[in-house]
Amino acid sequence: MLLLTIDRQAELPLHRQVVQQLRRKIERGDLRCGDRLPSTRRLGDLLGIHRATAALAYQELWSLGYLDLREKATPQVRQRRQLAGGEARSGQRLDWEALSSATSRLVFAEDQAVPPVPSQTDLINLATLDLDPALFPIARFRECLARVLSKDGAGLLGYGDRLGFPPLRDYVSRRLRQHGITAELPEVLLTNGSQHGLDLLLRLAADGRRGVAVEEPTYDTFLRLLHSYGSPIYPVPMTPAGMDLIRLERLLRTTALAYIYTIPTFQNPTGISAGQAQRERLLALAEHYRVPLIEDGFDEEMKFFGNSILPIKSMDRMGCVIYCGTFSKVLFPGCRIGWVVADPDCIARLGALRRTQDLSSSALLQAALWDFCEHGYFDRHLARMHRVFKRRMRCALGALRRHIPPAHATWADPPGGYLLWLRLPDGVDADAVVAYGLRAGVRVLSGRPFFPRASRAGYLRLSVSSAGEPEIEEGIRRLELALRTVHQGAAQLRHSAPTTAKAKGRWSAGRPHAGRVS
Amino acid sequence: MLLLTIDRQAELPLHRQVVQQLRRKIERGDLRCGDRLPSTRRLGDLLGIHRATAALAYQELWSLGYLDLREKATPQVRQRRQLAGGEARSGQRLDWEALSSATSRLVFAEDQAVPPVPSQTDLINLATLDLDPALFPIARFRECLARVLSKDGAGLLGYGDRLGFPPLRDYVSRRLRQHGITAELPEVLLTNGSQHGLDLLLRLAADGRRGVAVEEPTYDTFLRLLHSYGSPIYPVPMTPAGMDLIRLERLLRTTALAYIYTIPTFQNPTGISAGQAQRERLLALAEHYRVPLIEDGFDEEMKFFGNSILPIKSMDRMGCVIYCGTFSKVLFPGCRIGWVVADPDCIARLGALRRTQDLSSSALLQAALWDFCEHGYFDRHLARMHRVFKRRMRCALGALRRHIPPAHATWADPPGGYLLWLRLPDGVDADAVVAYGLRAGVRVLSGRPFFPRASRAGYLRLSVSSAGEPEIEEGIRRLELALRTVHQGAAQLRHSAPTTAKAKGRWSAGRPHAGRVS
Repeated sequence: MLLLTIDRQAELPLHRQVVQQLRRKIERGDLRCGDRLPSTRRLGDLLGIHRATAALAYQELWSLGYLDLREKATPQVRQRRQLAGGEARSGQRLDWEALSSATSRLVFAEDQAVPPVPSQTDLINLATLDLDPALFPIARFRECLARVLSKDGAGLLGYGDRLGFPPLRDYVSRRLRQHGITAELPEVLLTNGSQHGLDLLLRLAADGRRGVAVEEPTYDTFLRLLHSYGSPIYPVPMTPAGMDLIRLERLLRTTALAYIYTIPTFQNPTGISAGQAQRERLLALAEHYRVPLIEDGFDEEMKFFGNSILPIKSMDRMGCVIYCGTFSKVLFPGCRIGWVVADPDCIARLGALRRTQDLSSSALLQAALWDFCEHGYFDRHLARMHRVFKRRMRCALGALRRHIPPAHATWADPPGGYLLWLRLPDGVDADAVVAYGLRAGVRVLSGRPFFPRASRAGYLRLSVSSAGEPEIEEGIRRLELALRTVHQGAAQLRHSAPTTAKAKGRWSAGRPHAGRVS
Repeated sequence: MLLLTIDRQAELPLHRQVVQQLRRKIERGDLRCGDRLPSTRRLGDLLGIHRATAALAYQELWSLGYLDLREKATPQVRQRRQLAGGEARSGQRLDWEALSSATSRLVFAEDQAVPPVPSQTDLINLATLDLDPALFPIARFRECLARVLSKDGAGLLGYGDRLGFPPLRDYVSRRLRQHGITAELPEVLLTNGSQHGLDLLLRLAADGRRGVAVEEPTYDTFLRLLHSYGSPIYPVPMTPAGMDLIRLERLLRTTALAYIYTIPTFQNPTGISAGQAQRERLLALAEHYRVPLIEDGFDEEMKFFGNSILPIKSMDRMGCVIYCGTFSKVLFPGCRIGWVVADPDCIARLGALRRTQDLSSSALLQAALWDFCEHGYFDRHLARMHRVFKRRMRCALGALRRHIPPAHATWADPPGGYLLWLRLPDGVDADAVVAYGLRAGVRVLSGRPFFPRASRAGYLRLSVSSAGEPEIEEGIRRLELALRTVHQGAAQLRHSAPTTAKAKGRWSAGRPHAGRVS
């Protein structure tokens, strides 16, 4: 006998009262799998409710998995599948390595091979390109966020324009005029940082057949991104003046390319800036062979030593250059705001792709950043960054000269930016230096991941972006300890079994201690 | 004779004084292409500066493109390439249609085919799934943003964790327990909205060969996303109970699939919710054939009619289900915060891919949202949303019953969510109804873009997410005007040239006016 009670005064609809009580009985085991329930007519009679109400209740219990309902058969209690608690997981899990595509398998393997960031305290970090958080203008930004939210919170918390918050696009367009670039609004797309712009560009044109020409060495995460698209990579060696254009032209003559990728200013990882003539020749090649040139201007604003060389994009008449920039390297990376400036047709296509990818970016952060810029805070912040990093870079160059003898490493003084690129003597293993560096209390990067092909020469990348002057000085002193240890080891090794390996990166023909910083 | 002046009291370094003056002379035309400059030794003597300083100046002018420097030759003024102003652009622009990959070409063509959102005022919008901005808890969110920025601005404005802000991941994990899902921290990835999660999943496993099974009709932007990956699409018809599982099993037996994609709750566009038994059978199929099941729970929280059916993920013991969710459909879309809950190995791989894509999301917005949730504001907001949308959906259902006769359209009452799916009589063109609707002052969507294959049956998707009750009532009245116009036109057409087309979507076998909402 089914004991249910109906409360006609209750707020809960009648059919839901039936559902609740039957559900409880099934969950407690008062009703078991296979038990039959009265027909809707009979249940209605029993409870004094309409037959349709009873039917509604059964329908809901069916949808919740508690009942089997078949036409003209009496309803029956059903074995409901149990919830999967964390502890009850089975061992036959899916094999995600096998399920992954070949390209994503490669990306994951590379990612797993990256050594984890050591959690050591008292470690001086000359490895990261993250900015020193002490330099973030947080209070100002908070003020801007509050202001734009007060003014138009509803507008900023809805879906944004897929090309980005128009006033910030307009600001980027105006700001780029200072760098000689003329770009109208339909030529500007805001992205989640400049990496996102690179991603969209590959999505636009990478088809697994046409490849991308890159500088060798180059920005390592771009290489990973190319792998994720299964895009062929054509490395073109760096010279002290920039990409080797003779090699590039040879490549262009024989190979269909989707893009040429270059970082003409403060190249990552070498710190090299290409001169104007080199930029003109590179553009002329791209135009002649009609291959789009991606110009990564990630560090454009950090010309703190005063060099006023302009982006390649400033000379682009054919819509051949795609300029990627970002606020991450001078303001806060955490805003994830960068931009792509390109031919309007290219931008429209990127916009369509980004809509399928994540619809749009957060208009709120873009609006706050726009407010920040419009109030002149960005210009003031930039002036401060120039003062700070001019000092930090000078400090780093002085410390290198003081602590590290040419026999241990050589380098060219960069004309700005955050990066220093040290070449180690033949036979000295960069990974060993990095490991000894960690023991000595300093973290630097091995040059290896920046090379698309295996390189026998050893390099280190140092960044001054996150450490203060005393740390930089001390970090470089610690690095010399590591260099000395490895160098002595290598010398002993050479002594016992001399090596003839003479792998020489072409760019290393450069002038060590060129002293461009006066 | 070269007239330069050196000011030894000036702050500007000597070599830069030389650079500035020579540059001005070249730009003004006082020095022309081919003009020779003195040697460094002679320039040093002339100006009373060190020869090295003169060399430094020439080097910078060379790098800026104003000079040709060749060893042992006198420096020569060079023709510098002009800046490309907006007006001076040439006609030989790159052809981005030709440069695009086949898949991105298709995405762009589809995007261009979408009719632009009309800018008409006094248009009632029953087309969008955007939320009514009047419901955004803006003041509360502003408070949360200010609080987290004060507490840890520096931490939140740096690069974030690639898997997302850990406290918010933890909150999502705890919240999902209310939906029967047990997920530890390594099983949760935060994304830029749930679309971004879908994108990462395709990047993980789509290889252009194995395809994806989708409900027919289904979320249109997911179809566009599949196109952008060149992924084969296998449509499985919807029935009133959900995906047709007999057809799905037939497909699984013969075809290697990367994923099965389902929206079991308030399916987009049909509004159908699958019952428990259907969910169990679907999961059993995925497990048996070992194909990962993407469960899109975009509208999970909007069960305002009280149905407490649980996500498929709640029964997942083999790590077979990937659950995608979002804050966009109940809070503010503009935060762009969604999540993927899946097997930890799957999540780790998605994290590696997302690093190549855009490094990380903004930790600031994630932290503010976490603060919002931790203060209980989310629960309160949700309760309010339930009250509001219960009323709005009832209003819409009432208006449909009052205004639209069964001869003009039929529908099933949805158990929650924002969507209504109207089937038009055979021979009535949905696009014509949409067009007449715009004239009558209401915007609804044609069902067409939701079908992976051409469908002869006509459907309309209505959404109550952004309009208030009076607007909904009036919008549906206007829709009936449009239906009547097209219906009369179709009737006349039938009269003159009868059509025998009987295309019938399987799901339309459903119960119109099922009256599940009491």
